[in-house]
Amino acid sequence: MNSPVRRSARSQRRERHQKELATVRQAAQPVLKIPVYRLANEEAIELIHRQSMKVLAEVGIDFYDDEARAILKAHGVEVRGDTAFFEPGLVEAYIAKAPARFTQLARNPNRSVTIGGRHLCFAPVYGPPFVYDIEFGRREARLEDFVNFVKLAYQNPYLHHSGGTIVEPTDTPVNTRHLDMLYSHIKYSDKPFMGSVMSAANAADSVTMAEILYGADKIRQNPALISLINISSPRRLDDRMLGALTTYARARQAVIITPFIMAGAMSPAGVAGTLIQQNAEALAGLAYAQMVQPGTPVVYGSFMTNVDLKSGAPMFGSPESQIALVTSAQLARRYNLPFRSGGMFTSSKMPDAQAAYESVMTMLPAAQAGVNFVLHAAGWLENGLTAGYEKFVMDAEVLGMLHKFARGLDVSAEGQAMESIYSVPPDGHHLGTPHTMRNFRTIFHRPAMFDYNPFEQWAEEGAKDIYRIANDKVKQSLAEYQPPPLDPALDDALQEFIDKRKLETGN
Amino acid sequence: MNSPVRRSARSQRRERHQKELATVRQAAQPVLKIPVYRLANEEAIELIHRQSMKVLAEVGIDFYDDEARAILKAHGVEVRGDTAFFEPGLVEAYIAKAPARFTQLARNPNRSVTIGGRHLCFAPVYGPPFVYDIEFGRREARLEDFVNFVKLAYQNPYLHHSGGTIVEPTDTPVNTRHLDMLYSHIKYSDKPFMGSVMSAANAADSVTMAEILYGADKIRQNPALISLINISSPRRLDDRMLGALTTYARARQAVIITPFIMAGAMSPAGVAGTLIQQNAEALAGLAYAQMVQPGTPVVYGSFMTNVDLKSGAPMFGSPESQIALVTSAQLARRYNLPFRSGGMFTSSKMPDAQAAYESVMTMLPAAQAGVNFVLHAAGWLENGLTAGYEKFVMDAEVLGMLHKFARGLDVSAEGQAMESIYSVPPDGHHLGTPHTMRNFRTIFHRPAMFDYNPFEQWAEEGAKDIYRIANDKVKQSLAEYQPPPLDPALDDALQEFIDKRKLETGN
Repeated sequence: MNSPVRRSARSQRRERHQKELATVRQAAQPVLKIPVYRLANEEAIELIHRQSMKVLAEVGIDFYDDEARAILKAHGVEVRGDTAFFEPGLVEAYIAKAPARFTQLARNPNRSVTIGGRHLCFAPVYGPPFVYDIEFGRREARLEDFVNFVKLAYQNPYLHHSGGTIVEPTDTPVNTRHLDMLYSHIKYSDKPFMGSVMSAANAADSVTMAEILYGADKIRQNPALISLINISSPRRLDDRMLGALTTYARARQAVIITPFIMAGAMSPAGVAGTLIQQNAEALAGLAYAQMVQPGTPVVYGSFMTNVDLKSGAPMFGSPESQIALVTSAQLARRYNLPFRSGGMFTSSKMPDAQAAYESVMTMLPAAQAGVNFVLHAAGWLENGLTAGYEKFVMDAEVLGMLHKFARGLDVSAEGQAMESIYSVPPDGHHLGTPHTMRNFRTIFHRPAMFDYNPFEQWAEEGAKDIYRIANDKVKQSLAEYQPPPLDPALDDALQEFIDKRKLETGN
Repeated sequence: MNSPVRRSARSQRRERHQKELATVRQAAQPVLKIPVYRLANEEAIELIHRQSMKVLAEVGIDFYDDEARAILKAHGVEVRGDTAFFEPGLVEAYIAKAPARFTQLARNPNRSVTIGGRHLCFAPVYGPPFVYDIEFGRREARLEDFVNFVKLAYQNPYLHHSGGTIVEPTDTPVNTRHLDMLYSHIKYSDKPFMGSVMSAANAADSVTMAEILYGADKIRQNPALISLINISSPRRLDDRMLGALTTYARARQAVIITPFIMAGAMSPAGVAGTLIQQNAEALAGLAYAQMVQPGTPVVYGSFMTNVDLKSGAPMFGSPESQIALVTSAQLARRYNLPFRSGGMFTSSKMPDAQAAYESVMTMLPAAQAGVNFVLHAAGWLENGLTAGYEKFVMDAEVLGMLHKFARGLDVSAEGQAMESIYSVPPDGHHLGTPHTMRNFRTIFHRPAMFDYNPFEQWAEEGAKDIYRIANDKVKQSLAEYQPPPLDPALDDALQEFIDKRKLETGN
C-alpha cells in the first residue's frame, strides 16, 4: 500500500464542514522556557555512563530473538548464547545516528507533535486492564471504556496525544484487539497515537493502518506511530518486544526504549545502581534500533519506581523515583536523545488525596526536567492496573497548570508593570488599573474544574468533593463529544483492512 | 528577669524520667544536598533588584508608626508624611548586618533548628479561624483544637517546629489569647515556636515567657522566638506589626518580614511586577529591623498567590505562585538572607484530590528551592481559613518524602551496587542479594500512612479513602500522646506570669 486513498471533492467539502463543527480547543505543546531541572552533577552522570558501558561490555544484555541476534552480530556486536556484549565505541557510534528530535504526524496536521528538544508532549495512561469511576467502582475495562478515554483525550486541550492502550478492552479478542484500538484512535480523535507492540504481526498491522491513513512515503519522512518497547529488566529483551521493535525500526516508526524497573526487585536496591543498569539496557535497545535502520526516531525511556522491600509492593510517587526521573533526563540529554518518563503515578486505588499527592510528586519533576514524552500523564491509578475516569480529567487540570509553569517569568516592561506599582497608593488596589485591564483575561491560568468559590457558595452548591465535580465533567464531556472529521473513503479502507485481518486470524 | 528559674535535683530526676517515657522520633532537618532549583537567570534577578531599589527611592514605603519613622529618620532614611524613601546604598548596608543563618532555640536542645543556608525547617499552618475534620465538617477553632494541633506537630517526625497561631482559639478572649497559645506550645511540645505579633504588648509578653523559659541572656545569643511580620501590600507596614517588629528586634528575636500579596489585587497582575513590589517591601522591613538592632536575625519572606481576576477569589497552588516562590528564593540568596515561603497551599475546602494536587504544586518547589522556613507545611485548607486535621497528617507524609528527596543521589560504591548488577542473571531478581539485605531497612523511604496494599486487601479492609485512614491516624496519635517533660518550677513560673497578665488585662 503505497499511497493514501484518493479523496473525492465531495468528501473534502464534508471534511471541511465537519472540521468547523467539531473544532475543540487545543493548547500548543509546552516548550520549556525555564532552566532544565538537574539533580546530579556532571561527574555523577559520567560515572553512571562509564559504569553502564562496563555492564554492556562485560555482562551484556540478553536478546531472545534469533533475527535480532543475527542483526547485532552483523553490526559488530559480540554474541554468546543469547547474550550480546557491546563495546562502548560501537554503542556510542550507533546512538549518534538517531535524531535529537522529530515530528510525529497527527491526522489533523495542526496536532502533529514535536518529540525532543525542549518540547513536552502529554499522553494518557497506558495499559490498565481495569477502569474506575466513583459510581461503579473498579471493573474490567471494555472497548466502550477505551473509546470513552479516546474521546476525553481528544476533547482535552492539555493532552497532545491520544496514547496507545489507554485501557485493555478485555471484552474483545486478544489477537485482534490492537485493530479495534488503532481504529478507535483514528476514528474518535485526530491527535497522534501509538502502535501495538504485542508482536511483530501487530506492529506490521499498525504500520499498514498508518500507511492507509497517511501514505507509505509520508510516514518514512516523519513517523505516524510511536510505540512503547519495554525491556524486561534485568538485562533482557523478549521475542515479542524485539519482533515489534524490528518491525517498527524497519518502517522508520518511532520507538521508545524503556527498561521497566521496580527497583529493589528488578534492579539493585538503590537509585544509582538502578540507573547504571537502566542506562545499559536502554542503550542496548537504542543502539539495536539504529542497527536495524539508521536514523530511526528513538526515545530514551525510563520507567522506574521502587518496591517496598518489606512487602514487595510497588510504591509510586516515591522520592527515589523522582530522583531517578530527573537524573535519567540528564542521561538522555547527554546522548542527545529525546526522553520519555514521568506521569501521574500513584499506588492509590481511587482518586483521593494520596493519588493526587503522589501524582504531582512525579509529574512536576517530569515537567521541570523537560521530559519530552510523558506517557501516563492522565488517568493512572493503582500502580497502573486501573484507569480512573475522574482521575483522568483531574490530572489534566494539573497539566494545564504545567503549560503555564513552563513559560517561566515574563520580565518584559509589561511584565514589570512599573507604572502600576508607582500609581497605586498604599490604600489602593490593582483590580482596575489600566495594566490589569490590559492583562486580566490571560495573565493568570484558571483551571476550569477546580473549585475556588467561597465556602458558603461551595456549601450551597452541595459541598462537592472534587471527585464529584470531575464525575460531572466526564459525563458532560462525553455527552458533548463530536467526532473530528474523517474522510469516509479512508474510513472504509481502514475498516476493510481490519475486516480482512480479523478473518485471517479467525475473529 | 535575667536567669531561668533554678531547678531542684528532684525536678531534674523527674525530667530525665519523663524524657525517656515521652521520647518521640524526630527526623533531622533536611539539608539540601541537591542543587538549588532556579527559574530566573541572573539578569532577571538583577533587573528585579534594580527596579525594586527605584521603587524604594522614588515612591517609598509607608510606616504607620511614629516611633518607627523616628528610627528610620535617625538612620538616614528620608521620611515625608508616613512615607519612607530609601536610598539603595543605605538599604544594602543595613541588610548586610543581618546573619545569613541562625539557630532558633527549642526547650529540648536536640530540637533547636537552623534557619538559613541549605537547611529546611517545616512548621504547621498558621492563622486559620476554622478547623475541619471529616466527621464534623468545618467549625470554629477552639483552644482544644489548638492544643490538639500542637500535640500532632510534636508527635510528627517531619515537622521541626511547633509554629505559631496554628489555629485561632476563638473560644478564648482576644487580648489574652496569645498567652494561652504560647503556654500550649511550651507545655505540650518541646519544639521551637513563634511569638505573637498582634501588638507591641503581645510581643513583649512573648519575649518575657521566652526569658522565663531560657533566661534573658541566652535568648540574646540565639533567638527563642521567630515571628511573622506581614507587610500590608501595597507598600505599607501598619502600627500593630511595627510595634511587634520593633519589640522583637530590640530583644534580638527573629522576625520574618513577609509582604502578604494576592497578585492582581495587592500588586500588579503579573509575576515580575509583583516580585519588584514584594522585594521593595521586604527590603524596607528588613533594613528597618537592622536599624533597630544590628545583627537581629531576620528572614526574607514571600507569601504570594494570585487572585482569579474574574471573581477576585484567591487561587492557591497556581503556577504563577510557583514561579514567584522559586524566584523569590533566588532574591533572598542574592541578599544572603534566610528565606521563608511555600507551604501546602490549596483553595479546596476539604482534603480532597484538588487540595493534594495544589499542595504539592507549591510544596515541592519550596523544597527544591531550598526554602529555609516553610510555614503552612501541614494542615492548610480553604485559602488558609481552615486547618484540616486529616490534611495535617497527610501533608506530613509528603514532608517525609521531601526529607528523602533532599538527600539526592548516592553515587558511592554501595549506591552503585555493581556487584549486584553483575551477579543477578536476566531471569533473576534482586530481592535476596547481599546488597539488598544490607540496605533493605533504610534504602527506600516508606510513608507510614499511605496505602500500598494490593487491591483485594485494601477492599477487604474497607476500601478506605486516605481521608478515613488519616482520620484514624489523628485519633490514634492524640490517644497515644504523652507530654514532653517540663520542669514544674518553670511551669509554675509561666503560669504565674500568665495569671498576672490576665488580671492586668481584665480576663
